[in-house]
Amino acid sequence: MNIEEKLLEGHKRACARLISMLENNDKEAIDLIKKLYNRTGNTYVIGITGSPGSGKSTLTDRLTKELRKKNKKIGILAIDPTSPFTGGAILGDRIRMNDLALDKEVFIRSMGTRGSLGGISRATWSAVKVLDIYGCDYIFIETVGVGQSEIDIVKMADTVLMVTTPNTGDDIQAIKAGIMEIADVFAINKSDLDGADKTKMEIEMNLDLNEKKDYRAPVIKVSAIKNEGIDELVKKLEEHRNYLENNNRLEERRTRNNKLQLLKLVENELMEIIVERSVKEDLLDNLSKQITLGTIDPYSAKDKIIELIR
Amino acid sequence: MNIEEKLLEGHKRACARLISMLENNDKEAIDLIKKLYNRTGNTYVIGITGSPGSGKSTLTDRLTKELRKKNKKIGILAIDPTSPFTGGAILGDRIRMNDLALDKEVFIRSMGTRGSLGGISRATWSAVKVLDIYGCDYIFIETVGVGQSEIDIVKMADTVLMVTTPNTGDDIQAIKAGIMEIADVFAINKSDLDGADKTKMEIEMNLDLNEKKDYRAPVIKVSAIKNEGIDELVKKLEEHRNYLENNNRLEERRTRNNKLQLLKLVENELMEIIVERSVKEDLLDNLSKQITLGTIDPYSAKDKIIELIR
Repeated sequence: MNIEEKLLEGHKRACARLISMLENNDKEAIDLIKKLYNRTGNTYVIGITGSPGSGKSTLTDRLTKELRKKNKKIGILAIDPTSPFTGGAILGDRIRMNDLALDKEVFIRSMGTRGSLGGISRATWSAVKVLDIYGCDYIFIETVGVGQSEIDIVKMADTVLMVTTPNTGDDIQAIKAGIMEIADVFAINKSDLDGADKTKMEIEMNLDLNEKKDYRAPVIKVSAIKNEGIDELVKKLEEHRNYLENNNRLEERRTRNNKLQLLKLVENELMEIIVERSVKEDLLDNLSKQITLGTIDPYSAKDKIIELIR
Repeated sequence: MNIEEKLLEGHKRACARLISMLENNDKEAIDLIKKLYNRTGNTYVIGITGSPGSGKSTLTDRLTKELRKKNKKIGILAIDPTSPFTGGAILGDRIRMNDLALDKEVFIRSMGTRGSLGGISRATWSAVKVLDIYGCDYIFIETVGVGQSEIDIVKMADTVLMVTTPNTGDDIQAIKAGIMEIADVFAINKSDLDGADKTKMEIEMNLDLNEKKDYRAPVIKVSAIKNEGIDELVKKLEEHRNYLENNNRLEERRTRNNKLQLLKLVENELMEIIVERSVKEDLLDNLSKQITLGTIDPYSAKDKIIELIR
């Protein structure tokens, strides 16, 4: 069997291999996606974000188990913040050493954020398409909720779940504000801790400030470790999905997301072309040095490079 | 007097206005930078990064006051994380209500992170060039140390100072790892708190793992609020500068930084051209919708858009 047949028959390793090939811009893999693209559109993507230590991974595992009861096929893409210097994942190996990894109907992948030029976003988007073709009913994209690029990734989702915990510092809360606005469902994890009600109230007050007319993000208390509130959380996620589907919003949202990702794909390729050509002509290093020495200004240097592509 | 004369005579408002004009890609401002670019190269840029609550702003203020004793002219660029949705700065107005703002030789600006396409990085770089022409001896770029784009910004600096505090959570430490590797000097702020020595030891151990041959980042304990250790910190910053200058590393480092920023400038302009043209031809929305519907794959859509520019 070739990789196409294996993918369609549900072989995990074929799926993993195809994702790796796409990360490297492999032509054969791209051709396969082109060929099979008409099989996409059947998966539902849930973005899960929250600060380190909020228990996102455990919660994702619980949600996965809950959906497995309904015999759904699940994909999990865990985005790892990566050292920009060494290229290695700084949170270490996130392979989940639990029963989920053994489940034939659960595909788990840790995505390292290699490179700064939007590479992770492109890789995640490609992986979503592969998992869609592979037949996943749900895909979870799990990210640490910090930074613009992380927000860009979580925006890929049909539904964004924000995970928080009681008594998070005010500063961290402020950072999260950027994400609060894109969250469709809030889960307060570790809600057996003191302060869960206060946190809930704070989020509700924040939601009061944002006038969204026909949908208001629910805020629910859960405990991933104690497995409490998970069924209700699934219900809330389903309600948001129903809201989107019943109001023709799902297609609109996906088109908006695809637009962002399409632009990133374009950006990536253009920059690859630019770097390749200007390196070949030694232009990039030369101009950069001249900028340092003050013999050319950045704007004129930029124009010289753009001329290369036109 | 026109804006050029005012800038060269040290008018703060002319400086502020020029930075705003560059943020909006104003042609007149760009022409002015081109004209005055041969005046650059006399400033030294220090990037200050650290998590929210680490006391970066207070420390920056103290360093500024220390350098003012030596009659240095200072620029402070404070990067504000911005809500990607509303475009507003989420940490609120950071204008420093203290004596620094009244000092004629201190220029302070809060930079909002508007837009996700590298806009903040470009704006900060432009601002650095303006402040260089304006005659600043030192420029501080202050960022919250989270996310790839923040790292990209702090990498603009000649010297990177990382601010930490005792007893920060392990998770936060892990996130910082990406920044640890680019730090040239470490300051443990609030070092009168318990755990300062433990934090120092942890950082030193981390540094032991990274073999940098001829320079090792110093780790010093300070208290910004109590104004303790600031003179020593300035000395360590100067030592790093001397190291770069005496080993021909400064030009090398600046050229590397300029290369990154030049590429961002190119990227920005190319994407503006792409968006403008594809919006005009209604191609972008159309293709994004087709991707959603499964009637075109992302890679073929990307090729169609790239054809526009070639």
